[in-house]
Amino acid sequence: MTTSRLARQVDFITELDKLKLILRRISVVGGSRLENSAEHSWHLGVMVPILAEYAPDEVDVGRVMKMLLIHDVVEIDAGDTFCFDPEANLDKEEREVRAADRLFRMLPDDQAQELRGLWDEFESGRTPEARFANAMDRLQGLLMNYGNNGGTWLEYGITREQILTRMDPIREGAPAIWPFVLNVVDEVLAL
Amino acid sequence: MTTSRLARQVDFITELDKLKLILRRISVVGGSRLENSAEHSWHLGVMVPILAEYAPDEVDVGRVMKMLLIHDVVEIDAGDTFCFDPEANLDKEEREVRAADRLFRMLPDDQAQELRGLWDEFESGRTPEARFANAMDRLQGLLMNYGNNGGTWLEYGITREQILTRMDPIREGAPAIWPFVLNVVDEVLAL
Repeated sequence: MTTSRLARQVDFITELDKLKLILRRISVVGGSRLENSAEHSWHLGVMVPILAEYAPDEVDVGRVMKMLLIHDVVEIDAGDTFCFDPEANLDKEEREVRAADRLFRMLPDDQAQELRGLWDEFESGRTPEARFANAMDRLQGLLMNYGNNGGTWLEYGITREQILTRMDPIREGAPAIWPFVLNVVDEVLAL
Repeated sequence: MTTSRLARQVDFITELDKLKLILRRISVVGGSRLENSAEHSWHLGVMVPILAEYAPDEVDVGRVMKMLLIHDVVEIDAGDTFCFDPEANLDKEEREVRAADRLFRMLPDDQAQELRGLWDEFESGRTPEARFANAMDRLQGLLMNYGNNGGTWLEYGITREQILTRMDPIREGAPAIWPFVLNVVDEVLAL
């Protein structure tokens, strides 16, 4: 069975299960445990149809959902890289590209090409869909930290400037949400 | 801020975080812990573009993804109901409808209506999208139990007949996958 099209698809889907065991630095709201990258990706996916109206250019909602559902699968091999750790980020791209090479090639060629293309597009951040997807990715982190009264920002002593640099894709990908972002950051840092 | 459109959307998105704490009976592959309904929903969402070619009628991939990403949010109030527990299933619909009433109404009216409509559509299983979505929901459970050498099927002594009844929506929603389902069930029950 290992050579048929369905078998390759099923093997890939089963492999993806491992993303549920990749822990981020951020906690679920309430702080009872760290969030994993699979449930984080779900949260992003469901945000898309709700917030798509804030994208400055019209976006294809289905494409953005697909992009966000697969944007973190490379962490199965590469692990989660904490965004505020400059050293860990030095070889992040190299680790993730290697992971993308292995993972997407498990699929039949046409699908490998489509999903790898979406992953590359997200990483490059150059299309309206990729810019909006990156905005959602940052906004979800902000909402988790907001829900946890500061979360990783306070825990790791992240400065206002560092947070705003990290959140900058929201200014570009969903500018109408930016004032809300500034309010949240000010509110949390005043705690 | 609590009356603005964005505030209602953000409150709903933050409320959805609670789905990460709803545990299913099924384990992640490897059995290290139970799967939660948020990561389960992510897994379903990412299966859609990969397996959509097996839907007998053409389906709108984006609509199916949306439907599956929200299909379990009612469990935030109603909890996960084990599919092989007939007693718990007696009041499942009532509990879930009450949850849908509360949750989707958090959103602005137009979005409440859209997402509630998708949830009702999934539950009714009457459109091509809903039939395929239900097939994916069952198939994911099968893949988890397959990956766990029988998982809940063996743990709770579920019979071949019970499993096939549970899997029946795959026969209708993705018939080309049905022979694979039969092979998996036979292989697992021979363990």
